[in-house]
Amino acid sequence: MEKEMPYKVYLTEEEMPRYWYNVKAHMKSKHGPFLNPVNGKPCTKKDLQAVFCDECVEQELNETDELIEIPREIRDFYRMFRPSPLVRAYFLERALDTPAQIYYKFEGNNTSGSHKLNSAAAQAYYAKKQGLKSVTTETGAGQWGTALSMACAFYGLGLDVYMVKVSAEQKPHRREVMRTYGANVVASPSDTTEAGRKILAEFPGTGGSLGCAISEAVEKARSTPSCRYVLGSVLDHVLLHQSVIGLECKTALEKYGITPDVIIGCCGGGSNFGGLIAPFMGERLEGGNNIEFIGVEPASCPTLTKGRYAYDFCDSAKITPMAQMYTLGCGFMPSPNHAGGLRYHGMSPVISRLYHDGYIRAVSAEQSKVFDAAVMFAKCEGILPAPESSHAIKAAIDAALECKENGQSKKILFGLTGTGYFDMSAYKQYNDKTMADFIPTDADLAKGFATIPNCEANKNNR
Amino acid sequence: MEKEMPYKVYLTEEEMPRYWYNVKAHMKSKHGPFLNPVNGKPCTKKDLQAVFCDECVEQELNETDELIEIPREIRDFYRMFRPSPLVRAYFLERALDTPAQIYYKFEGNNTSGSHKLNSAAAQAYYAKKQGLKSVTTETGAGQWGTALSMACAFYGLGLDVYMVKVSAEQKPHRREVMRTYGANVVASPSDTTEAGRKILAEFPGTGGSLGCAISEAVEKARSTPSCRYVLGSVLDHVLLHQSVIGLECKTALEKYGITPDVIIGCCGGGSNFGGLIAPFMGERLEGGNNIEFIGVEPASCPTLTKGRYAYDFCDSAKITPMAQMYTLGCGFMPSPNHAGGLRYHGMSPVISRLYHDGYIRAVSAEQSKVFDAAVMFAKCEGILPAPESSHAIKAAIDAALECKENGQSKKILFGLTGTGYFDMSAYKQYNDKTMADFIPTDADLAKGFATIPNCEANKNNR
Repeated sequence: MEKEMPYKVYLTEEEMPRYWYNVKAHMKSKHGPFLNPVNGKPCTKKDLQAVFCDECVEQELNETDELIEIPREIRDFYRMFRPSPLVRAYFLERALDTPAQIYYKFEGNNTSGSHKLNSAAAQAYYAKKQGLKSVTTETGAGQWGTALSMACAFYGLGLDVYMVKVSAEQKPHRREVMRTYGANVVASPSDTTEAGRKILAEFPGTGGSLGCAISEAVEKARSTPSCRYVLGSVLDHVLLHQSVIGLECKTALEKYGITPDVIIGCCGGGSNFGGLIAPFMGERLEGGNNIEFIGVEPASCPTLTKGRYAYDFCDSAKITPMAQMYTLGCGFMPSPNHAGGLRYHGMSPVISRLYHDGYIRAVSAEQSKVFDAAVMFAKCEGILPAPESSHAIKAAIDAALECKENGQSKKILFGLTGTGYFDMSAYKQYNDKTMADFIPTDADLAKGFATIPNCEANKNNR
Repeated sequence: MEKEMPYKVYLTEEEMPRYWYNVKAHMKSKHGPFLNPVNGKPCTKKDLQAVFCDECVEQELNETDELIEIPREIRDFYRMFRPSPLVRAYFLERALDTPAQIYYKFEGNNTSGSHKLNSAAAQAYYAKKQGLKSVTTETGAGQWGTALSMACAFYGLGLDVYMVKVSAEQKPHRREVMRTYGANVVASPSDTTEAGRKILAEFPGTGGSLGCAISEAVEKARSTPSCRYVLGSVLDHVLLHQSVIGLECKTALEKYGITPDVIIGCCGGGSNFGGLIAPFMGERLEGGNNIEFIGVEPASCPTLTKGRYAYDFCDSAKITPMAQMYTLGCGFMPSPNHAGGLRYHGMSPVISRLYHDGYIRAVSAEQSKVFDAAVMFAKCEGILPAPESSHAIKAAIDAALECKENGQSKKILFGLTGTGYFDMSAYKQYNDKTMADFIPTDADLAKGFATIPNCEANKNNR
């Protein structure tokens, strides 16, 4: 039976998940394997282990086990910042005067300011367990870099973070948090790698991109002994780690007999959305529910809504394996939207496949509208949201207003991935009314699509 | 019987306090009344109501009721960001290799980043209930101003925040958070008030001080219709509101049969420390426990450890009532320590009295040592602390190391009042190793003491 939820629900430590949820075990059609960029053939486990930690590769390739145990050491780390609260947005509902019920899972109550710590904790632990000395990564908005800095400080691992230059300049304070946790932060493109030097030569004034920072981080990891590269989104094992979000949600909702009608998440690389929906989607794929899943992306980087389903590189220098996913082309240059974490040309292969197969709906939102929603939310619910997360808020408000129009009392659940404390220059633009919206033209899109590799796999696909 | 605590304890909504705790009801010797700055006589209720909200004045003057009910509307607001977690610092204990048990109450999980929201919620509610249109206040580090902005946005009240100029310049992002919540932020001293203009004329290059910002905010409130001034610390009713911290702590600890041996808090105006210790101190004053209470202040602004117990003004322009408290003199100019929230010349009259009567021990700490403790804590416990809160961390670590030396397994509880996300320029100085320590010389102190008023009350007191 359904019960009225308190404003916030925290699980007890005993109720916290002991297993991650692997949604792939329930997918009848799965995405294709990574392809080796040199010969176009499926990557072997060994290919992947040259770049990623062994255990992460195992998880990446696991398509059969629904549950994968969370090691005790990682569960200990999780106890530092989890459980995260599931909140009933009573005050937002009141302000919207909607018959809908709005719930959100808030992942921002930790120093990284987002859900990213869920996977950082796991990946740093596995790197340490494997005997590595250091890891490398890239960061856009800075949340992933901060999360990984925290995890590396905790486990005693070295860390080089390639931070997209425009973010590093806009957010010197983010960089300082990472430094405080002991990370070495390099603005990308940099002259510390071949990939960086090449991009600098071609585009001397560039502010960088996630794709370019990935190229640098991968190159650095490959050229450093006892070092691997770790990625904060996109990959299947990252979505796996993020499934703690959805699992905690599901347990909390079930305590009150609540099944959501709609689940909404913002989509950059897809890890937060993938983690939030994982156990609900697994159930859906087996016919156990009829939930509507909505991914929200910025209109300036419309990977799902305007991209193509194809094999593409995960980085702009084309040194990573090719993944089957929705993509705007690895050479797509996103406009300077403030949601740095959503400015990625590709999308999680798992999310892409589910979207391709019709299990997910995608919408896009312009940033000025997103900030309208963010400020309304902040004033009602007392949390200043990250620009990324505010995409989900915007869609949740839209859904709640639609309910008001139709007199429906749907239960809307969305992922509030993080806080906007390091995004105040974006809020300043909004407060000063100088914020602009950027939408790529057909020509911009065509330029991006032209960079999708013309490989065998893509030929067969057309 | 004592039980091992999980890493974190959250009370349920049912367990949350319904009453604030008024420690004055248990104090045999109480501090003297406020004195009218014009005639030196005790302030009447009417005097105080000209500046503060009526209900806050009632609470300020209440010396007899142990419990004061928290209105439902304020408890609703509290549910947005409370309960706050009580944490067992297992990882810090392990890093220190100490037999001591360390607990902390973390008040930073809200957008204001600190405990300040506990009183902001109450004061904004009472202002609204009284039919006021707006309120004014001052802010140093910015946490109080942010908290009040959030509360005023929620209740629909106008707000002018006088922000100490040096903070406004160091922390433009703090200012932007307040603006996002709709507050009008003015760097102080400003030319919008007589007090500000006077100080600017005397000290043209000054970075301002809390005392000066208070003068401006009080003047502005007095000259605006349907407006009152609200203060974020020092006063008895603010300590009363902050008692939710101590009450939640006590309930949580009692569930596990734990009585702390030592309770530590940082001391600026005294509201966090006063709120944390309130119910424990009330018990102590009745002979119910033997807890050691330690207040920690910066060596650069050593109000308790080097100040005088006297009547003094709460502001530097000498327009507020005089309070009986420990003070460095209302004209004391604190050095540019990064713990902006602790740079106040005076101290809560309640804390001052308890200290004067020997129930509290006070220590001071230099900021470089405080940041050593902060960074160690951040790496172990995953929370980047505010410079203010880090004073308590420093003292807790010292106490735990003393236990290690003596083989004692004391239970140490400290208040982690907030996060340092808006203090990254301070952390940058620390990371760059350019942080300096400032300790006032005897001459600096003498200059401050010379500004303590030479009123009748102080003459009788010597």
